[in-house]
Amino acid sequence: MQATFRALREHGYAGLTIQRIGDHFEKSKSLLYHHYDSKDELLLDFLEYMLAGFERATPDDDLPPREHLDAVLDHVLAAKLPDDQRAFTRAMVELRAQAAHDERYRDHFTRSDETFREELAGIVRRGVDAGEFRDVDPEEIASFVLALLNGAMNQRVTADDPPTAAVREEIEAYLRSRLFGDA
Amino acid sequence: MQATFRALREHGYAGLTIQRIGDHFEKSKSLLYHHYDSKDELLLDFLEYMLAGFERATPDDDLPPREHLDAVLDHVLAAKLPDDQRAFTRAMVELRAQAAHDERYRDHFTRSDETFREELAGIVRRGVDAGEFRDVDPEEIASFVLALLNGAMNQRVTADDPPTAAVREEIEAYLRSRLFGDA
Repeated sequence: MQATFRALREHGYAGLTIQRIGDHFEKSKSLLYHHYDSKDELLLDFLEYMLAGFERATPDDDLPPREHLDAVLDHVLAAKLPDDQRAFTRAMVELRAQAAHDERYRDHFTRSDETFREELAGIVRRGVDAGEFRDVDPEEIASFVLALLNGAMNQRVTADDPPTAAVREEIEAYLRSRLFGDA
Repeated sequence: MQATFRALREHGYAGLTIQRIGDHFEKSKSLLYHHYDSKDELLLDFLEYMLAGFERATPDDDLPPREHLDAVLDHVLAAKLPDDQRAFTRAMVELRAQAAHDERYRDHFTRSDETFREELAGIVRRGVDAGEFRDVDPEEIASFVLALLNGAMNQRVTADDPPTAAVREEIEAYLRSRLFGDA
């Protein structure tokens, strides 16, 4: 999985072959060929591995909801995308595009969207329950924010210099007026 | 260009070949091979053709700004995506993903994002100038809405049953509170 991660960052989806993943693999390459008939099978396993890692990660539930939400947004919409994160985002955009014609990828991204949406909805729910946020529908807010983040992430690697700072400003204004009630 | 459009809808990017575009072309296939060395060159021309068509299309500037914005959102976030529009969206998502590793595609999508952003900003500006919208920054609103629409469109063809209705509801709530001032 580490070898796949490194190979993906280096070559992207289009340039990836099992051979090239093998170049990043310390053990025998024949092990890879033994386990995987195609690069897509390997990549689908890789995506599951990444998602399971995210689900296992300790949630920052000790952070106050508003700071928690800010931390998520700051990560995805950071003013400068570090090279490693850019290479990884690029590969994820290419992998996600496979879902347009391959239902195995579509199954995966359906589930990963659900996981991220539930994560966002959980933060909003805690804010509402604590009386810190307005009495909104957490699922609806989460669906909206996830679509926005997916779009902004995609733009960052498929267009030159998209206005990420403006998107970050406006989502702050949105949250102030819809959630925090201090617009 | 019509042949490319039909072939893209039928085969998607991954399954597309100049041969298959030729199958939808009434004139001699050799004409296609004569003009294009690769399917990407043909597809890049196709993208320019589509963008030029959008830019030439009569803007609905006679619509009041609020209705105009609603019409755009209703089109992209329609409850049911017609099969033709779904096939086309699928192909666009695949083409856009090429921009992750091919700067010719990135150049195109940089320009097409600018066109759509300017279209959205123009609607918002007219609403502000007419005193119908709050005094917001039209570019910032447009950047936000475009990222959202790009994300929602991508999700519609890369995940099963994303919550498009919830996104449509929430963007309405967003516009009411940020633009229309009647939240």
